[in-house]
Amino acid sequence: VRISELAHRTGVPVHTLKYYLREGLLMPGEASSRTRATYDERHVERVRLVRALVEHGGVGIAGVRSILAALDSPPPSRHELLGVAHGILPGGSTGDTDRDVDVDPGVLALLERLGWEADCSPWVAVLADALARARSAGVTLPLDDLEGYARAMRSVAEVDLTVAERARSAEEAMRVVVLGTVLVDPVLLALRRLAQQAESAARPRARR
Amino acid sequence: VRISELAHRTGVPVHTLKYYLREGLLMPGEASSRTRATYDERHVERVRLVRALVEHGGVGIAGVRSILAALDSPPPSRHELLGVAHGILPGGSTGDTDRDVDVDPGVLALLERLGWEADCSPWVAVLADALARARSAGVTLPLDDLEGYARAMRSVAEVDLTVAERARSAEEAMRVVVLGTVLVDPVLLALRRLAQQAESAARPRARR
Repeated sequence: VRISELAHRTGVPVHTLKYYLREGLLMPGEASSRTRATYDERHVERVRLVRALVEHGGVGIAGVRSILAALDSPPPSRHELLGVAHGILPGGSTGDTDRDVDVDPGVLALLERLGWEADCSPWVAVLADALARARSAGVTLPLDDLEGYARAMRSVAEVDLTVAERARSAEEAMRVVVLGTVLVDPVLLALRRLAQQAESAARPRARR
Repeated sequence: VRISELAHRTGVPVHTLKYYLREGLLMPGEASSRTRATYDERHVERVRLVRALVEHGGVGIAGVRSILAALDSPPPSRHELLGVAHGILPGGSTGDTDRDVDVDPGVLALLERLGWEADCSPWVAVLADALARARSAGVTLPLDDLEGYARAMRSVAEVDLTVAERARSAEEAMRVVVLGTVLVDPVLLALRRLAQQAESAARPRARR
């Protein structure tokens, strides 16, 4: 199909498609004349993926480029997969993170108590940063609450890993971990709000 | 203090502070001369709050304005608090949501099975939208996995509600629910990634 049809099918404007082409996020179409190219299903799929990452996953152009590169050449063993996937994921959906943030010793002790050997994980800094930002806006999270949240997110991770283990190839597992993490985040946040309503309705009114 | 000092203490540039003043997000300082005003601790706190919402909570200017209005005049009873808080929260951190999205009957059946009376909740549309976006990028979530995520987020909501119940006043409860939801989201997403690493390390290597 021509680029106008690709735009129609994906809902992405032609000028944005040309931008994706220029930035190397979309592979070139097959030249059908000196000024025209045709596109196929692979292009439709790729455009949808790029769009989801850029618009809904909060991933920048450079991040999309490394995610695409990783999907095109997955690591040789599944063992390294999570490390590679995490290395290319952006710092949560919080945007850039100041890696110099101090980590509360209480938080480190909590992670150790949970058996999370997280010493050298960059996500510890992301976590500390998110906590510091909440605190600067007047929301301080006691360690007991943080522990409750951590245990709940461990259950989320159990589902995440089970999904990744079901994948039939390293390529698919990579795709599941990277996209599943970025694109399932908004699903989890919507579920959190629905669960708040359910939990609120279930609690005795006298306590509210 | 003068506006330059307010900028220094909050790390927010003077031109941004003037923008907050123009948009009504920051209350005016006390006029100390025809062209000067002085600011106090209340201003420092407010600037930190606005900044956290705009920069890290993914909330737009209009959203910040309604959050501030709600914090200034909380609902009369705690019973209505969650509804009011949810009404002013932006549609997750996914930005604008297309409310016309079709909700999968399987998802509705799951919510019912969980005992979440979510029929008229706007978050059902946000959830359906997040699922549709993931699907269009090639990530389809089986209902069993979604159920696992939902049960985990119910545990998150239990902590959320317990925190809100601890609040000593309706004002504080409102603050906890609104800010706790928006500002704790990034904490949960960082914990998810740490938990993935912990869970991955805990699983027998043969299965990976």
